Amino acid sequence: MNPVEIKNRKEFTITCPIPVRDYPHVLLAHGGGGKLMHQLIEKMFKAAFESSELHKGRDAAVLQLGQGKTAFTSDSYVVRPLFFPGGDIGTLAVNGTVNDLAMAGARPKYISVSFILEEGLAMEALWRVVRSIRRAALEAEVEIVTGDTKVVDRGKGDGMYINTAGIGEITHAQDIAPQNIQTGDAILLNGDLARHGMAVMAVREGLEFESAIESDCAPLADLVGALLSAGVEIHCLRDLTRGGLASALNEIASGAQREISIDEALIPVREDVASACELLGLDPLYVANEGRFIAIVPRRDQEKALTIMRKHPLGQGACLIGTVGNRGSALVTLKSRIGAGRILDMLSGEQLPRIC
Amino acid sequence: MNPVEIKNRKEFTITCPIPVRDYPHVLLAHGGGGKLMHQLIEKMFKAAFESSELHKGRDAAVLQLGQGKTAFTSDSYVVRPLFFPGGDIGTLAVNGTVNDLAMAGARPKYISVSFILEEGLAMEALWRVVRSIRRAALEAEVEIVTGDTKVVDRGKGDGMYINTAGIGEITHAQDIAPQNIQTGDAILLNGDLARHGMAVMAVREGLEFESAIESDCAPLADLVGALLSAGVEIHCLRDLTRGGLASALNEIASGAQREISIDEALIPVREDVASACELLGLDPLYVANEGRFIAIVPRRDQEKALTIMRKHPLGQGACLIGTVGNRGSALVTLKSRIGAGRILDMLSGEQLPRIC
Repeated sequence: MNPVEIKNRKEFTITCPIPVRDYPHVLLAHGGGGKLMHQLIEKMFKAAFESSELHKGRDAAVLQLGQGKTAFTSDSYVVRPLFFPGGDIGTLAVNGTVNDLAMAGARPKYISVSFILEEGLAMEALWRVVRSIRRAALEAEVEIVTGDTKVVDRGKGDGMYINTAGIGEITHAQDIAPQNIQTGDAILLNGDLARHGMAVMAVREGLEFESAIESDCAPLADLVGALLSAGVEIHCLRDLTRGGLASALNEIASGAQREISIDEALIPVREDVASACELLGLDPLYVANEGRFIAIVPRRDQEKALTIMRKHPLGQGACLIGTVGNRGSALVTLKSRIGAGRILDMLSGEQLPRIC
Repeated sequence: MNPVEIKNRKEFTITCPIPVRDYPHVLLAHGGGGKLMHQLIEKMFKAAFESSELHKGRDAAVLQLGQGKTAFTSDSYVVRPLFFPGGDIGTLAVNGTVNDLAMAGARPKYISVSFILEEGLAMEALWRVVRSIRRAALEAEVEIVTGDTKVVDRGKGDGMYINTAGIGEITHAQDIAPQNIQTGDAILLNGDLARHGMAVMAVREGLEFESAIESDCAPLADLVGALLSAGVEIHCLRDLTRGGLASALNEIASGAQREISIDEALIPVREDVASACELLGLDPLYVANEGRFIAIVPRRDQEKALTIMRKHPLGQGACLIGTVGNRGSALVTLKSRIGAGRILDMLSGEQLPRIC
C-alpha cells in the first residue's frame, strides 16, 4: 500500500466519525478484538492520526531509523484476574509486546514497562508481578530500559494495568505484512488453540477441571528468527490474541483483499480445552492465545517451514491449516469437520472481555 | 556510570524489597513523584530489571540502534479531570512523551498511543481527546505509528487512561545526563512555574478565579533543538512535571552526587498562580508543570543559551535560577526571598495526585 496522501493536515472534521446515535458510549466490545473495535480503530483512530504505517495494519510499526529498519509497538494489559495458571499480567505484558515485534519479523531488543497501580494493591502482589516481568524479559532476551509509575485511587484500576512498548531490530530484507500474501500461500499454525483464553476464563468463572488449563503465554521471537535465518520466505505473520484465529484471519483477508480458507479438521484444540469451551459456549477459533501465531508462506516453503517449527519447543504441534485464495473478496471460509463450508466472520459483540 | 554488573541473572531474591511491614499496600504517594515513588523505583523496579540504562535516570533511555543513537520513553497519563483549561489528557499524553525525548536531547519522531477506555465513556469525549492528540502530534511534528485499544468495566478507569511511548533521533554527540553536571554550571529555567498543576487543581477543587489559569502544556523539542544546533554545551535537561522543580533538582543532585543551590527571588511565578497556590496551601516549587524545563549548562554558555531561549515562544521568560555546587553532598538548597537558606527536600507524601 502506498503511503496515505495527507492533504490539508491542519484542517479536520469536527464530527465524530462513530455515529453517536448508534454508539453514544464506549462499550466493552470496543476493546474486544472484534468488529466494534475495528470500526473504532479504522474510522476514528486511523482517520485522525493519518499515518501510512498505521494503515499497514501490522502488529508493530516498521520504521526507517538512520540506516536500519526498526520495529516499534505498544500494548496495554488489563487482564482480570491478575494471576492465572501459566502466567500473570507481567508475563503477558512482556510476551505480548515481544510477540508483536516478532510478528513484524524483528528481533526484540528493548522494552518499556509502565504501571498504573491501584491505591491499596498489596505490595507483595506488585512484587510477584515484577518478578514475572524480570523472568519473562530474561527469557525473551529483552532489556527493560525505561518505565513509568502512576497510582490511581482505590476502586479504579483493578489492582494494576501495565503498558509495555517495545523496539526490535529488523536485519533481513523481507517485507512481512498482510498485503503481501499471495494466492496459493500456505497458512501454518504453531500449535493447539485457545489455551490462554480458557486458562483465564476458568479462574474467572471458578471452573474446576481435572487439571488446570495453563495459558500458552510464551515469547515467539526465537521461533520466528529460526524461520527467517533459514531463509524461509514469509509473507505475513500474526499472533492470535484477542479475537483468536478467526479475527486474525479476517484482519489479514481484509488487509490483503483476498479470500482465505481453512479446514477445521486440521486445527488442533486440546480435548480439555475443547470441553471447557463447550461448557462456556465459546468457539475456540475466537478464543485468545498468547503463544500461537500463523505464518503465511509460499507453498514451496511450506515443508521447510514446518520442519523448522516442529524442531522448536514452541512449534512442536505446527501444522498446515489452510490456504490463501484469490484477490477480490476478503472472506474467510471454514470447511467444517462434516465437510460443510461456512463463512468465518470477525468476532462481533464481546465474547471474552479483559482477556489480555 | 558504567553498565551495572549483572551476575547470576537467573537467580533473584524472593523477598519484597519494599518493607511490607511499613508499606503493605500501594499508596497514592507511590505515584506522586516524591520520595515514596523514588523508593519504589529504586528498590523494586531498578533492582529487579537491572538495566544500566534505567540506572542513568534520564527521562528517556538512550539506545544504540545500528549506527545511530535513539531515545525511547513511555509514560501513562491518568490526569483527573480529563479536560482542563489549556489542554486535556490527549494534549498531555503527546507533549509529555515528546518532552521526555527532548530532555534526552532527541528529536521526537514517532509515538504510539494506547487507550484504556472505561465502558460508558461518552464517544464524543473520546473524539475530543483524539482530535487533541492529532493537533498536538502535528504541532510537535511526531507521527503516530502504532497503538492499542482496551476497554475496562464501568466504574474502572475514570473515563480513560492513555499511554504514549516515543522514539526520537539523537543527531549530536553530546551526552546529556544528571551525572554530567559540573561545579559552577548555570541552571536555566524557561519560564514561570506551577501553571499546569494549578490549572488542573482549580477545576478539580471548583475554584473560581478572575481568569482561568491555563496549563503550560507544550512541546519543548523545538526549543531544545535550537540550543543544540547553536552549539550550546548542555550537561543536563529535565522537564518539571510531577513533583515540580524541587523534585527534579533533587533527582539531579542525587544522580550527580552534587549540591545544587537556587535562589527563590529568581524563580518566576505568575501572581494569579501564586495566589492559587497559597489558597490551596501548595508550594509552587513542588507543583507540576508541562511546558517548563531546566537546562544545566557551563557558565560560559549561560548568556548564549538564555538569548536563544528568549527568542523562542516557549522560552520568553527564560532566566538563571541557580548554580551547581561541589561533589559530595546531594542537597538542594534554596535561598529564600528574605535571604535565609533552607534545604529543599524531595516531595514527601502526596501533594497533587493524578496531575498527569
